[in-house]
Amino acid sequence: MEAVAEQSKSALKKAEKQAKLAADKAAKAAKKTNLPVVGGKKTDDIIGITVSKEENFSAWYQEVVLKSEMVEYYQEISGFFVLRPLAMHVWSTIRKWFQEHIEAMGVDEASFPLFLSSKSLDKEKDHVEGFAPELAWVTKAGDKDLEVPVAIRPTSEAVMYPYYAKWIRSHRDLPLRLNQWNSVVRWEAKQTTPFLRTREFLWQEGHTAHLTEELAGKEVLEILELYAGVYEQLLALPVVRGRKTENEKFAGGYYTTTVEGYVPTNGRGIQGATSHCLGQNFSKMFDITVEDPANKGSHVHVWQNSWGLSTRVIGVMVMVHGDDKGLVLPPRVAKVQTVLIPVGINKNTTAEDRKKHEAQLDAIQSTLRKAGIRAESDWREGYTPAWKFNDWELKGVPLRIEFGPKDAAKEVVSYARRDTGEKGTIPVGEVDSKIPELLETIQKDMYTKAEASFREHRLKITKWDEVLPALDKKNVVLIPFCLGGKCEDRIKELTTRADDQPDVPENQKLPSMGMKSLCIPFEQPEGPELVAGETDCLNPECQGKAQKWVMFGRSY
Amino acid sequence: MEAVAEQSKSALKKAEKQAKLAADKAAKAAKKTNLPVVGGKKTDDIIGITVSKEENFSAWYQEVVLKSEMVEYYQEISGFFVLRPLAMHVWSTIRKWFQEHIEAMGVDEASFPLFLSSKSLDKEKDHVEGFAPELAWVTKAGDKDLEVPVAIRPTSEAVMYPYYAKWIRSHRDLPLRLNQWNSVVRWEAKQTTPFLRTREFLWQEGHTAHLTEELAGKEVLEILELYAGVYEQLLALPVVRGRKTENEKFAGGYYTTTVEGYVPTNGRGIQGATSHCLGQNFSKMFDITVEDPANKGSHVHVWQNSWGLSTRVIGVMVMVHGDDKGLVLPPRVAKVQTVLIPVGINKNTTAEDRKKHEAQLDAIQSTLRKAGIRAESDWREGYTPAWKFNDWELKGVPLRIEFGPKDAAKEVVSYARRDTGEKGTIPVGEVDSKIPELLETIQKDMYTKAEASFREHRLKITKWDEVLPALDKKNVVLIPFCLGGKCEDRIKELTTRADDQPDVPENQKLPSMGMKSLCIPFEQPEGPELVAGETDCLNPECQGKAQKWVMFGRSY
Repeated sequence: MEAVAEQSKSALKKAEKQAKLAADKAAKAAKKTNLPVVGGKKTDDIIGITVSKEENFSAWYQEVVLKSEMVEYYQEISGFFVLRPLAMHVWSTIRKWFQEHIEAMGVDEASFPLFLSSKSLDKEKDHVEGFAPELAWVTKAGDKDLEVPVAIRPTSEAVMYPYYAKWIRSHRDLPLRLNQWNSVVRWEAKQTTPFLRTREFLWQEGHTAHLTEELAGKEVLEILELYAGVYEQLLALPVVRGRKTENEKFAGGYYTTTVEGYVPTNGRGIQGATSHCLGQNFSKMFDITVEDPANKGSHVHVWQNSWGLSTRVIGVMVMVHGDDKGLVLPPRVAKVQTVLIPVGINKNTTAEDRKKHEAQLDAIQSTLRKAGIRAESDWREGYTPAWKFNDWELKGVPLRIEFGPKDAAKEVVSYARRDTGEKGTIPVGEVDSKIPELLETIQKDMYTKAEASFREHRLKITKWDEVLPALDKKNVVLIPFCLGGKCEDRIKELTTRADDQPDVPENQKLPSMGMKSLCIPFEQPEGPELVAGETDCLNPECQGKAQKWVMFGRSY
Repeated sequence: MEAVAEQSKSALKKAEKQAKLAADKAAKAAKKTNLPVVGGKKTDDIIGITVSKEENFSAWYQEVVLKSEMVEYYQEISGFFVLRPLAMHVWSTIRKWFQEHIEAMGVDEASFPLFLSSKSLDKEKDHVEGFAPELAWVTKAGDKDLEVPVAIRPTSEAVMYPYYAKWIRSHRDLPLRLNQWNSVVRWEAKQTTPFLRTREFLWQEGHTAHLTEELAGKEVLEILELYAGVYEQLLALPVVRGRKTENEKFAGGYYTTTVEGYVPTNGRGIQGATSHCLGQNFSKMFDITVEDPANKGSHVHVWQNSWGLSTRVIGVMVMVHGDDKGLVLPPRVAKVQTVLIPVGINKNTTAEDRKKHEAQLDAIQSTLRKAGIRAESDWREGYTPAWKFNDWELKGVPLRIEFGPKDAAKEVVSYARRDTGEKGTIPVGEVDSKIPELLETIQKDMYTKAEASFREHRLKITKWDEVLPALDKKNVVLIPFCLGGKCEDRIKELTTRADDQPDVPENQKLPSMGMKSLCIPFEQPEGPELVAGETDCLNPECQGKAQKWVMFGRSY
């Protein structure tokens, strides 16, 4: 554990350093946002983001998720985070949407225990090997040692499949399709980051069994399409659907399909969610068979899938949409979609006028709520409207409505979009139709913008020398590739930059990270540059012929 | 752990013994239900319940939850259970209902880590003391020892409240109301039972902070009313609302309110769910304060509540409604509300007639689904209609629809209610209105029956000598009670039967369990028998005066 502790310490130092750098900007930021400044230093009262997204992406991200009140660091145990209501609203929206869709497909809900025994772990050693260093072991209950220690699930294949063997007795029991929403624990040694890499995370894990490869394969793609839907329809994020290479597929599985996202700020790819066909590998390990309906007397092993989507999706959403003012939430997943802020009320306002104004704003809020909008009003006293604007911008609320005596006189509300900053007015009598429309426009525009960015940074490359410059310009690349595992390893090495920039200041150095394959996109580029089996693999050292366009990139 | 292992072994032996006793009935039961009998012995193929609810309640319960496919015993680690789709459907229905209601109250969703550190445990020793023997300790990650072991949450006060102290800075941050849906682990040494006592269980835990006792107290009762709603409106179970005595309240809390259920078969009370006012006890331990808005400069500790409802509710539902055929599910929580079973189709049916019949049944199913009914058809081949009837009765489906050529000729469907066995017919053209009505009637009748049983077995007792006979007749009792803790302990002792039945066969002995207080019902009986402070406490040894009618009983 020392290594872990050391890593955490160094991470902490790094964070402290970043905080200090950030402090210098605090006065400026504070001025800009009308915040109280205490001795020119960053204080807890400075609500704005003090780091620029472009300049220090990692520090920016950590500030945003913390200050927007999405997460809280769990001080007691490193690598764990509290998910606060803002984040949980996004997750529960996803949960509802996905649950409805899989229910309609006939997937049932189940809940298997948190623990697995060392005995069942032995059954599937290959699969478990990857998780072994990260297993959390319970060895004591109260003050008594357990006879046999038990591990907390890092994923539930070993917990569930013995029961699949028990429950599946005949082809009539197929398909068996179960999903559970739970948390899993992987005691990461690497530096943890909220949502992206945490020692506990929330996810759903679906585990299904089918009679044939074809039936299993059909489901794999149906689920993948739902995962794409979570990104595209709810989170306003574009993804590329594809298949993982052999190197990158789920250990122990047959093949893995994936939706891959893209983070414009650093040009990295990020795995969105994966839907695996396990083939018959696990059914052989766990002895899950049925009598072959086509060949009485003989038994066949069932075909299995597993598929999972985790709270990581929230991190991708923050990284892509957020800006220097903080979080930017897509309206469909925002806990508060529209915030109403009273303006133009001051010491000179009479009590009567104030009361009238309150009643008007209440009526607007009530109209919006009836129209199905999650609307809140900010009546907090002791804060200026400007402070409130910043606070709700930080929290990513998609649409701000300002309403003052001048608006009232014109019978309009003034609005400001969080995503573009665009301002305008809407007649009070039309808020119930115009505001839902505007929110949908915001949702669509956010997707369009992110999609354009991903499309523009997904470059078809046919010359090896162009790869590294393309990566440095924050692109991911589509290259003709032989699909070979060793070739893929070598490509990573060849694109890993030796420290060849000794004179360049630390924060201007180009990334040294090599690229790995993200997926073999289902949608292959057309054109004569790649003829499968004839065109050379792009790796100059490779003797093989390209089979497919494969998306490579620096990645999370 | 040896003690635990011993207990498990003895439990296992007991279960084996029960299974053997049950086997003797198997042939009879099998005959009754048209099941295959293998050498007159119980086999896995015997789907019916082999034990009578009245004769061996505990064995009956275990058979029902297992054979109806609500749960599976987790063989790998004792005390854990798999919740299968039938059970999860009940739970997720409850979850949706409760979640909607607390959302409307303004309670937000959060997710706190699974673990607590020994440091935060130290902060609230009194509260933790009760849980200490049941804490599961993680001491290793991979093959490395953790520097500081961490415990899995048995409940989350110690995980959450340090953050309440951090987040609550001003009375404007109040109320803070968070709820989480998760699982907790309590490594019980006692014999475990599905749903009722398990080492891991699903629940929700709400934790809120308020400025005043009054505001906290209001919420305590609002939540209690929702808990009553889960029982009464969803599970068709009656409960008595009340307050726990000092002896029975939540350790570390201020006062506890509860809904109490009743199991007619053994006359025991069972705690349904509890809503606690913690007072300022925890806010003092965790230093959760705000500036007093009424007295600037001085700080006040916040008033806190916590409230929880667990999967135990499912166990109560099974125990009360189930019968010798198996589970009986209230329609509102049944995964399948209506099962359609084709009858009268046999070897002599022409292919054409068969096809026509299938189309008719499909049309009925489709009509029902459009009417919002969860309807399934059982087209399994190789099983007789009678076998299917038994199978769906075992699984508790509220309404069976039979449809054969004779029904088709009359343009009706035949139905059988699971709760009463009542049969009848409904015109095919009216199923979309009559069947939803019938399901609501079943729901209401199930409640009415259970409510009458609880009411009839809740006896007002004013003579001490009548207490034990009343308990032996499966009643709970309402008695004038002084509310004293020691007196309550003594009442339990006085009602614990020494083994005074040496000549009575084991299975005819009256229970030896003493009674404890279930609650002080909010709704107190009227009448002259109790004048608070004047009437004597019913305990003949007690010198005190009765304050309230208190419900006592043998209990879970």
